[in-house]
Amino acid sequence: MQDKLIELKRRLSEVDDLSSAAALLAWDQQTHMPPGGAEARGRQMATLQRLAHEKFTDEKIGYLLEELQRAGAGWAYDSDEASLLRVTQRQYTQATQVPASFVSEIVNHGSIAFNAWTTARAASDFAAIRPLLEKTLELSLRYADYFPGHAEPIDPFIDNSDYGMNAATVGLLFEQLREELVPLVRAIGEQPLANDEVLRRGYPEAAQIAFGEEVIRQLGYDFNRGRQDKTFHPFATKFSVNDVRITTRLDEKYLSEGLLGSVHEAGHAMYEQGVDQALEATPLASGTSAGVHESQSRLWENLVGRSRNFWIHFFPALQATFPDQLSDVSLETFYRAINRVEPSLIRVEADEVTYNLHVMLRFDLERALLNGELAVADLPAAWNARMESDLGLTPPDDRDGVLQDVHWFDGLIGGGFQGYTLGNVMSAQFFAAAQSAHPEIPDQIRVGSFDTLRGWLTENIYRHGTKFTASELVERATGGPLTIEPYMAYLTGKYGELYGL
Amino acid sequence: MQDKLIELKRRLSEVDDLSSAAALLAWDQQTHMPPGGAEARGRQMATLQRLAHEKFTDEKIGYLLEELQRAGAGWAYDSDEASLLRVTQRQYTQATQVPASFVSEIVNHGSIAFNAWTTARAASDFAAIRPLLEKTLELSLRYADYFPGHAEPIDPFIDNSDYGMNAATVGLLFEQLREELVPLVRAIGEQPLANDEVLRRGYPEAAQIAFGEEVIRQLGYDFNRGRQDKTFHPFATKFSVNDVRITTRLDEKYLSEGLLGSVHEAGHAMYEQGVDQALEATPLASGTSAGVHESQSRLWENLVGRSRNFWIHFFPALQATFPDQLSDVSLETFYRAINRVEPSLIRVEADEVTYNLHVMLRFDLERALLNGELAVADLPAAWNARMESDLGLTPPDDRDGVLQDVHWFDGLIGGGFQGYTLGNVMSAQFFAAAQSAHPEIPDQIRVGSFDTLRGWLTENIYRHGTKFTASELVERATGGPLTIEPYMAYLTGKYGELYGL
Repeated sequence: MQDKLIELKRRLSEVDDLSSAAALLAWDQQTHMPPGGAEARGRQMATLQRLAHEKFTDEKIGYLLEELQRAGAGWAYDSDEASLLRVTQRQYTQATQVPASFVSEIVNHGSIAFNAWTTARAASDFAAIRPLLEKTLELSLRYADYFPGHAEPIDPFIDNSDYGMNAATVGLLFEQLREELVPLVRAIGEQPLANDEVLRRGYPEAAQIAFGEEVIRQLGYDFNRGRQDKTFHPFATKFSVNDVRITTRLDEKYLSEGLLGSVHEAGHAMYEQGVDQALEATPLASGTSAGVHESQSRLWENLVGRSRNFWIHFFPALQATFPDQLSDVSLETFYRAINRVEPSLIRVEADEVTYNLHVMLRFDLERALLNGELAVADLPAAWNARMESDLGLTPPDDRDGVLQDVHWFDGLIGGGFQGYTLGNVMSAQFFAAAQSAHPEIPDQIRVGSFDTLRGWLTENIYRHGTKFTASELVERATGGPLTIEPYMAYLTGKYGELYGL
Repeated sequence: MQDKLIELKRRLSEVDDLSSAAALLAWDQQTHMPPGGAEARGRQMATLQRLAHEKFTDEKIGYLLEELQRAGAGWAYDSDEASLLRVTQRQYTQATQVPASFVSEIVNHGSIAFNAWTTARAASDFAAIRPLLEKTLELSLRYADYFPGHAEPIDPFIDNSDYGMNAATVGLLFEQLREELVPLVRAIGEQPLANDEVLRRGYPEAAQIAFGEEVIRQLGYDFNRGRQDKTFHPFATKFSVNDVRITTRLDEKYLSEGLLGSVHEAGHAMYEQGVDQALEATPLASGTSAGVHESQSRLWENLVGRSRNFWIHFFPALQATFPDQLSDVSLETFYRAINRVEPSLIRVEADEVTYNLHVMLRFDLERALLNGELAVADLPAAWNARMESDLGLTPPDDRDGVLQDVHWFDGLIGGGFQGYTLGNVMSAQFFAAAQSAHPEIPDQIRVGSFDTLRGWLTENIYRHGTKFTASELVERATGGPLTIEPYMAYLTGKYGELYGL
């Protein structure tokens, strides 16, 4: 059997080489590529992705998996071997379930819809995109049909990004969360708005970058196995456990964008850098789900990076870096500025508290669309009604309403949103568990020591890669199932104090 | 037939995608990759190169070539179609001639020899590397045996980099050149050495980069389809006709290294950027030989970039950029400094005139080794004797003698050097032809206009890609065969005046 396992790993490593190379091409495209390179780059990435897909869906991989699983009953569930077979089998089934011709159809439709969306969004013209969106819905339902046995059509989409979750469990969790969040946002809204003028005083880019890199270095992002570049949309990407890069976007007129954006991406990257080296170049060597990934970016960005303890440590250095802007500013003023809560129309600009309402709105609407409970024609009205009920705002037009995100307009509807809020919920549950194991963590953060926290996260989450599903990880790491309690306790504690509720 | 041609191009484009991706991975490795990424990167590049090789040597490509060539008698020799078949057939034959197992043997031996060389070179210990070099020679002879019909074992190696040339023709040309060069170097050596102290006054890196980029932009390097980064070893590389990048190395203590290095690499890159867009993603879309490639880097670096006319245009701007260093320096002093000739031990540090003596020494010695006329054991003595006779210098040890270049120590002996001097010879022949067609070129350079020259080069050389061999290109572009006359006329004219000969 050993030679079959070696052969499987050899094939998976080849697939990994191809997809890592495609990821580097994509990174270069967004960081350094001259404009002229775009056309050839599109062709090259498509070839690498196609070859990676061909090699991964090769029936020989299917045979190897079968034989190894038949023989491998002795391997423990959490062993590298059993995990490799289990996770590879799941991904293999997902990848081979949908015919290539249908994938092409989706890709073609997606690029037509995407182009139409850019025009429709600029013109705030939902009617123009409606027929294409109806076709997208139809394709999405056909996609779901390739995965029989699901309770709702959105379930296979959830499987793709948050394997093991489903509409029922996510829906229930979101219902509970929404019930508590809406009143909290309303209560905060009755208090005077925090002033964030201090963040808008003009912060030169080079100094922002240097400060941000020093911050994430102290958090534990390993620059020996990564680097940071500037891009229009920030992201984290990985070409190996030992080469995990992040990008950032800076705004000289708004300090927290770049600074906390770097911490967010470093959170994603520390997860990937923390995966066990033994899993390198296999399907086990990456973050396990969209939700768990987001839990790490949010944990570092919000629970750590927007905490008072964090700034007790970093604020003096920030003041020394920007004396003209900050020497007359108190830590408390700064802390309140970076934690300002204000209901707004646009998801990607939303604060920590209101953000989830944007996400849950989208999840509920796409679930309703897929379940046939909402017609595409009625989507804008449903969107606006929910914005009104949850955030007390009505979009002036569809551009700042239902047309704002690309997600539904580039090929498929479903599964693209729930991970953001699952991540927020998990971030607090993980942080609470870490703190319960190591009550000294807050004091350590206050003096700029992050090793205990990162060590706990590495031990309980990072090193496992995709071995465990999100639910398994939560259970193992926190001793119980996913629950909103730690998250609501965090929010009400923090914002209750900030807004005197 | 049209569908067979389309199928061939589709396969070649896929090969091109893979090798372009491998080239980007190599570029990233030298420019931006964090140190931790090295191991995975080696694996990824090897996979891409292997797949590119597998797909290029697929027997279906052989069949398609056969059928298309049988059917395509109507295509003109210089048509895109006939050229594609001719050049692809040649590369296909070269790639399929050597068994994969023998290629592995060479690669394995090469990596052992390379490691041993780094140690032996540091210790100046030729005896330590001698047995491995003997094995390299043996492997090289076996390699040559896979290409029956050659007159000398070095010929297949010359074919790989300078197709259409052979030992006899190159040897004859080099003999003529050496006969004229040795006395010229001796005559220059009898004159007082030019003073290049003005180049060593300390030039801050950022200003050097900005100035160098402005220079190559004016020459015609298209930053919309390229970019420049810093690396330890400068190079040009290409991922598409529309994405051709260069790198540079800067020395704050020696101005001409970075500045003329950028011009050199921009010369390589303008050649690649000038290839006809219709040839993109086929074997036709690159420079045609090592010699012709080097002719373009050298033409721009030396015939243009070290000319008085060039600096009549650029020197005032250089003085304005570095007033502290250059305001008291005359154009003439600067011109003499960048054209200082001084025999030296190390090839890569040699000036324009003596450089060829280093190259021809290596060519003659590797030819003699392969012909069995020189034993590996006698190589150091032969090296030193030739240094003495041609340059009047004796290496104090083998480190600065026979061990200085990696070429013979990384797997094979043969074909790695002649292109440098062929390029120098061609550079002058091409430049003379351009000037004879457009006598206004020198006056234009004096006022910073390079379009006529670049236009002539594009029309006569660049756009053709690999359609024509070096000899064909020279014949077509200059109206006659390759000859040393224009090159010697250039050298004796320029250096005769500079050194009052």
